[in-house]
Amino acid sequence: MKKTIAVLVENHFGVLTHVSGLFSARGFNIDSLTVGETEDPTISRMTIVVDGDEKTLEQVKKQLNRLIDVIKVIDLTAEDFVDRELVLVKVRTDNNTRPEVFRIADTFQAKIDDVEKETFVIEVTGDRNKVRSFIEILKPFNIVEIVRTGRIAMGRK
Amino acid sequence: MKKTIAVLVENHFGVLTHVSGLFSARGFNIDSLTVGETEDPTISRMTIVVDGDEKTLEQVKKQLNRLIDVIKVIDLTAEDFVDRELVLVKVRTDNNTRPEVFRIADTFQAKIDDVEKETFVIEVTGDRNKVRSFIEILKPFNIVEIVRTGRIAMGRK
Repeated sequence: MKKTIAVLVENHFGVLTHVSGLFSARGFNIDSLTVGETEDPTISRMTIVVDGDEKTLEQVKKQLNRLIDVIKVIDLTAEDFVDRELVLVKVRTDNNTRPEVFRIADTFQAKIDDVEKETFVIEVTGDRNKVRSFIEILKPFNIVEIVRTGRIAMGRK
Repeated sequence: MKKTIAVLVENHFGVLTHVSGLFSARGFNIDSLTVGETEDPTISRMTIVVDGDEKTLEQVKKQLNRLIDVIKVIDLTAEDFVDRELVLVKVRTDNNTRPEVFRIADTFQAKIDDVEKETFVIEVTGDRNKVRSFIEILKPFNIVEIVRTGRIAMGRK
């Protein structure tokens, strides 16, 4: 089962390596990982989505809590949370396909970020399902490149 | 100077630890790091923003290229690129402050993701400057929590 964990860490170099190392040492495959600044510049927040069993995850959480640079571990899986991901998709179009791709972008409330002669970059945000549908529906077109942030999550309360 | 590096890696566990370890071993502070899926499910794309000197970065890039799980290293700093970040901000409002916060969200083309009785979650995307301004302008209000994805980047060509 997919687990979503937020870890507040001191902004020292090496912390990221330490934290991701704990997961990989236990054989967890990290589905997605992001690290971003928080309202306090000395603290970063990691959002980690992993696939693994409950028992091993409990052990990893305990180990995380023991690390000196880890301030707080929040297991969002148990809570009601909002999750979002940002995806950039570069599509190559011609005069025939362009209107249809623009129409799809519009349906998904996606933004057109950058227009070159033959390609453009579309920016879409959403939860796992919305992002998956958006990419699926664009597949018949000429996708040149996809870049995804990985997911971030925040408890509703 | 800030450098933006994209690294295409095999989707094995441990790769993330390896790659982030190379940067921290050289004393680079990682400003932001994201790992997301690509169009090929066996390959992930990391976007890393670091602050450091050119010469040390060249060494890290060489070492990255030697790792068996690293497919490609792209130094976007040298290219013309689009960069974007997604940020969720939870704000606590009352009847007096709510209209003003909604107006700010509207100005920044931000979306209201989740509304609880006293708090709501605003979703904004943009480049470094837009995100910085958005957070600055919300500071006088009651910000409960900020979660950021870190930046992703894509060459324009």
